[in-house]
Amino acid sequence: MTTGVTVWLTGLPSAGKTTIAYELAARLRADGRRVEVLDGDEIREALSAGLGFSRADRDTNVQRIGFVAELLARNGILALAPVIAPYTDSREAVRKRHDSNRTPYLEVHVATPLEVCSARDVKGLYAKQAAGQLTGLTGVDDPYEEPAAPDLRLHAQHQSVAQSAAAVHALLTERGLL
Amino acid sequence: MTTGVTVWLTGLPSAGKTTIAYELAARLRADGRRVEVLDGDEIREALSAGLGFSRADRDTNVQRIGFVAELLARNGILALAPVIAPYTDSREAVRKRHDSNRTPYLEVHVATPLEVCSARDVKGLYAKQAAGQLTGLTGVDDPYEEPAAPDLRLHAQHQSVAQSAAAVHALLTERGLL
Repeated sequence: MTTGVTVWLTGLPSAGKTTIAYELAARLRADGRRVEVLDGDEIREALSAGLGFSRADRDTNVQRIGFVAELLARNGILALAPVIAPYTDSREAVRKRHDSNRTPYLEVHVATPLEVCSARDVKGLYAKQAAGQLTGLTGVDDPYEEPAAPDLRLHAQHQSVAQSAAAVHALLTERGLL
Repeated sequence: MTTGVTVWLTGLPSAGKTTIAYELAARLRADGRRVEVLDGDEIREALSAGLGFSRADRDTNVQRIGFVAELLARNGILALAPVIAPYTDSREAVRKRHDSNRTPYLEVHVATPLEVCSARDVKGLYAKQAAGQLTGLTGVDDPYEEPAAPDLRLHAQHQSVAQSAAAVHALLTERGLL
């Protein structure tokens, strides 16, 4: 049977995580792979309505997404999780859940610098924070703990979305997961 | 690609839902199918910690399980959900989620009568309720709305677990889902 894998794309808001995930998903589907994108915002609505953005609530949300990703991945699906996941501990717990089931897991750091993310501001969050209409924005007034040793670090500001997606594709190939 | 399907086994506590699900899962895995059992108690822990047993909380829990089941099923997995799901509206919402994605969905009513469930009392819940240590027990002092037209109704008290599992297997075959 096909081997599944979870690819977690962690990074700041507006780093490009979701865009890269959908680009990669399209490419993998064209190859005939079964892929699910567990979009942070959409899946929060489905699984974590009522949770906020405190550390505890963020961790709970990340663990729920990790649970679902592992369920999919252990069944041969390629699960892409473009989800901020700002805390190292919480990301490590997701990796451990996968390891304990021998389900492949890759962490990709979409390492777009804060200045670039803030200038893009796809959802207008940085502007809202600057205007005092929002607090707890990851990377600004809430922590983002950079992964020390991700499986791949994408300097996404220096390349196209297609190039970033291709780099993750190459990693999957290299690890024998495609 | 393989077609997936969600099979929801609804019924009272101690009706035999989980036992039938695991028996069926073993049989289907022996056939080479990918199967996940979304066990009500286990998945509540993973996805709905903090929720209680009010109508609203039960509905939220059922919708979350329905979301995950549909994700699996639309990716070719056979998802078995042995989950009480006492309210018709909430079960219908899960069916609609599947219908709107054209993902096959079957509802199986494990229709073991209350007296039999209460005598079995696998988890000691009926005894606790009788002793006044627990309230809100489905079928006793909390509602259970029987499905009016399930895809299959199992009179599980009159047959072995293997026979009940075989009946669901036969339904899956009949619907072209195996």
